Amino acid sequence: MLIAVDAAGGENAPREIVKGAIKAAQENDIDIALVGNKAVLHVLAGREIKKLNLQIFEATEIIAPNEHPMRAVKSKPNSSIVIGTNLVRDGIASAFVSAGNTGAVVCAALLNLGKIEGIERPALGGFLDITPATPTLLIDAGANAECRPSHLAQFAQLGSTYVKHLLDIDSPRVRLLSTGEEETKGNRLAQESYSLLKKSRLNFIGNIEGQDIAKATADVIVTDGFTGNIVLKTIEGMGDTFLRAARQVGYVVATAYHLRGRALLQEIGLGSWAKKADYREYGGACLLGVNGTIIVSHGRSQAKAIKNAIGLAKQTVERDICRIIREGNYEPTDSSN
Amino acid sequence: MLIAVDAAGGENAPREIVKGAIKAAQENDIDIALVGNKAVLHVLAGREIKKLNLQIFEATEIIAPNEHPMRAVKSKPNSSIVIGTNLVRDGIASAFVSAGNTGAVVCAALLNLGKIEGIERPALGGFLDITPATPTLLIDAGANAECRPSHLAQFAQLGSTYVKHLLDIDSPRVRLLSTGEEETKGNRLAQESYSLLKKSRLNFIGNIEGQDIAKATADVIVTDGFTGNIVLKTIEGMGDTFLRAARQVGYVVATAYHLRGRALLQEIGLGSWAKKADYREYGGACLLGVNGTIIVSHGRSQAKAIKNAIGLAKQTVERDICRIIREGNYEPTDSSN
Repeated sequence: MLIAVDAAGGENAPREIVKGAIKAAQENDIDIALVGNKAVLHVLAGREIKKLNLQIFEATEIIAPNEHPMRAVKSKPNSSIVIGTNLVRDGIASAFVSAGNTGAVVCAALLNLGKIEGIERPALGGFLDITPATPTLLIDAGANAECRPSHLAQFAQLGSTYVKHLLDIDSPRVRLLSTGEEETKGNRLAQESYSLLKKSRLNFIGNIEGQDIAKATADVIVTDGFTGNIVLKTIEGMGDTFLRAARQVGYVVATAYHLRGRALLQEIGLGSWAKKADYREYGGACLLGVNGTIIVSHGRSQAKAIKNAIGLAKQTVERDICRIIREGNYEPTDSSN
Repeated sequence: MLIAVDAAGGENAPREIVKGAIKAAQENDIDIALVGNKAVLHVLAGREIKKLNLQIFEATEIIAPNEHPMRAVKSKPNSSIVIGTNLVRDGIASAFVSAGNTGAVVCAALLNLGKIEGIERPALGGFLDITPATPTLLIDAGANAECRPSHLAQFAQLGSTYVKHLLDIDSPRVRLLSTGEEETKGNRLAQESYSLLKKSRLNFIGNIEGQDIAKATADVIVTDGFTGNIVLKTIEGMGDTFLRAARQVGYVVATAYHLRGRALLQEIGLGSWAKKADYREYGGACLLGVNGTIIVSHGRSQAKAIKNAIGLAKQTVERDICRIIREGNYEPTDSSN
């Protein structure tokens, strides 16, 4: 299985991307194609290119994080994002992983891979791995800032299918993110989405409020891409804040008891907890509803996140998620919306 | 100064409310009026009634958390929420604190106190006290699920005025919650609000993303009440999760080193950090833009949160926030919206 990796996207590109890709290739039975500046990639990957049989695809253009997605994709055919999605379209790569401009990745996927028939809007499904229990999928994590109720109903369907087949959860519990448990709570979008979800065949078990997101009471949390993106990032930010605090505590205790910090953190079990709170664990979000496997990684991703995003891509391909979604029945739930 | 407290609202009413009110009266130079079931309140407050000169107002009706706000307020004139807001309207109490049905408190305030002239929509300003630095005000924290850009522009004005006069911050830094730093990021509401805020006289310093909320880079964060409510609760939920983990860590370390848990937590400074992460510290959110001081407390508030909410009410009255807002110029910023 060949997985294409955007070596030019994200704040820590290309160094951390290359490091993560090499680790993924070492640990998994996969081939990697790096897309970026050939000369630079040769320097960074060095001897690993031969050893791991890394492929390198030249991308002479770069799409910046603040560029207008659609304009950038259309005007830069030689960017790593466009080349990466084309590798998937042409069947050369099984998946594409990018930590670049999210909007541009979504646009490139829409243009080059196309939507799966019946899907109104592909959406990003990202895992909230904040508790030791089963992970929760948040959808849409940021592909669609403006949504209609019928979109949210489809996001729920996409998310439910993904979780079911990726994690072997028989009947995923779907909840709608809102400001109260009752059907009448929330904005108009939430209220109208609730009534669509209630009528659906999904295992919809009602609304979920912010304070319960971390409690693993849902397998899929549905929301619009604006709210979803903000919530996902808020959780990451809180994780960072507490991680810093936990590290401080670790050092203070270590000093007080003449222990090495890491040994102590491990001894008291804080290590694995801190790991849980670290968003670098998640790796990335899957763009569900397009004809191909696309994983969008956090712009601040370091090697570990990239390695995990590649792992998620591999799993998504192995579980044949794209085909399963294509075989689903995705008629719009309510054409009036 | 007399502060009316809703003894019938919230999950832990009336016991925790009465406990919190008594503590507030003991620690501050204020008088308390408890609104609720007279017989029960006499039993719970006991000897403190005389000692602290507590007043008790009988409320024979209760508005449940899941009741439709406007219908409940109109049909239950003898509920603690309606009686409490009327005590403010009639000048008997200087402020009203409630942990009851937020929507009902907002409706009762709108009906009984009325909006300040020029204000389109009163909004809830709640403090995010997650870092040791200055607290950040999130507005709207949940009064208006559906908003227009002109509403957000006014929320910014209200929040800026509140923070300026409550915390003595000269030129509060205002940021708009969105999915990216650029003006073009976010949903339509965020984009259009950005251009209004840019034109305003406020110290608007651009968008803020979820991961930066905890970093104290803003004094006021503006958003619609749907997103605001979800973000506020998500932060609370994360705080709870980490608090539990911190406590576990404390116990494990304490056991390993034969220390008492609390002593150790204090020794390593985790105590104050855990305190910071505990939403019970904040107390409540202020409903800005109505003719009177109304503090809405979290439905799960315990004694400490109620005590702090009463403290916030006292400060808000002392700083004469209502009059200052009334003297402001709150013409709609854009009548076309």
